[in-house]
Amino acid sequence: MANEALGLDVKACIFDVFGTVVDWRSSITAQCANMGRIKGIERDWAAFADTWRSKYRPYMDKVRSGELPWTNLDALHRMSLDEVLDEFEISGFDDAEKTAVTYFWHNLTPWPDSVPGLYRLKTRFVIAPMSNGNIALMTNMAKNGGMPWDCILGAEVAQHYKPDPESYGTAVKLLGLQPEQVMMVAAHQGDLLASAKVGLRTAFVPRPREHGPDRTPDPTPDPSFNVVADNFVDLAAKLGV
Amino acid sequence: MANEALGLDVKACIFDVFGTVVDWRSSITAQCANMGRIKGIERDWAAFADTWRSKYRPYMDKVRSGELPWTNLDALHRMSLDEVLDEFEISGFDDAEKTAVTYFWHNLTPWPDSVPGLYRLKTRFVIAPMSNGNIALMTNMAKNGGMPWDCILGAEVAQHYKPDPESYGTAVKLLGLQPEQVMMVAAHQGDLLASAKVGLRTAFVPRPREHGPDRTPDPTPDPSFNVVADNFVDLAAKLGV
Repeated sequence: MANEALGLDVKACIFDVFGTVVDWRSSITAQCANMGRIKGIERDWAAFADTWRSKYRPYMDKVRSGELPWTNLDALHRMSLDEVLDEFEISGFDDAEKTAVTYFWHNLTPWPDSVPGLYRLKTRFVIAPMSNGNIALMTNMAKNGGMPWDCILGAEVAQHYKPDPESYGTAVKLLGLQPEQVMMVAAHQGDLLASAKVGLRTAFVPRPREHGPDRTPDPTPDPSFNVVADNFVDLAAKLGV
Repeated sequence: MANEALGLDVKACIFDVFGTVVDWRSSITAQCANMGRIKGIERDWAAFADTWRSKYRPYMDKVRSGELPWTNLDALHRMSLDEVLDEFEISGFDDAEKTAVTYFWHNLTPWPDSVPGLYRLKTRFVIAPMSNGNIALMTNMAKNGGMPWDCILGAEVAQHYKPDPESYGTAVKLLGLQPEQVMMVAAHQGDLLASAKVGLRTAFVPRPREHGPDRTPDPTPDPSFNVVADNFVDLAAKLGV
């Protein structure tokens, strides 16, 4: 049993989602391009997706700093969409259409190994998203993409965005576990380092194509990570499932 | 499509769990009897289960009234277990054993129609427990019993026990829906009437054997309920799934 062989006593694996479980960039690009065809609008939709995503952290930071009261990610995506539409000089969308576009984030395609890997991990561990996405977003995404989560954790149940320590700490508490019994899985080293600070175990799964073919992947894994895996199926194997 | 034929626009079905989805009485009785055999203790274990369950509402009411701060159901079960052990003159359990007995509530058997019905309902609706049980309890119960929940809602995410209106209202908000798009499913009429007060749709599924063969079932359904079904498979059929 590799979990024990690694000196670990993990009972639950919790996952970063955008980039780690799903390919947000291809999915948002494709859905926006489809919308463009329907509306007769031509733009660089991959650039549109990248610009929209680039506003993710600044908007969350407004909540993390207290500039905004607690606001869930659907609402932040809706606010930042207005900016992106302006920057790409797209006008004439009514409120219902903007909401529909915001909900593109509920329909992101998993990486090919994600769902098979999650099914294997689920046989042995509690599996849950530990995302900054809200519960409705994660729930709808799982129904669209087939992720077999046992429960939905994340920023909204903590009312704290990652990488605030309260976000990870609340997940551990709601699982009824100790921090060392919970493994954070992410393609982003900062997320893992922040979770390790509150005592979680860490698994790094690089996703070199997250930002498209032209971007440099996250560099050499920090030596503190408990597991480094090529993908979710490899992660299951390394954890002995 | 029966959902529309009934004049309904339901997107999510949320469920009372103890009694409605699972047969808590037989499950607790069986696990306690097994423990009794191992420890060499003879008691009326069905009476033990009934007594333990009878302390559920008074302990929750201590939280609802503010006498206790927010305390999850695992912790309330642990507190009430001490009383039940005293009343049944059982002594000598250490803390780890009492915790193990408390966790019997994480392992309750679904009624025979529950899991098949949930799988059918899941193809069309978001399905989630809306229980006073905490997230860890519901998550572990689903892994033990095979309930394919899309997410875990309930008292703990609201920090309000049913039938407080905040408990149902928080579930609706976290689903990103309007109250009339959410159907509460329960074997207990009071639970349904409380959810209807905050605008939810209601489905009554009587479970006449919840309290064992000798107890009178909940009487004639209130005429305000949107659906009355014999079991979860019948509920799915009545909702057109």
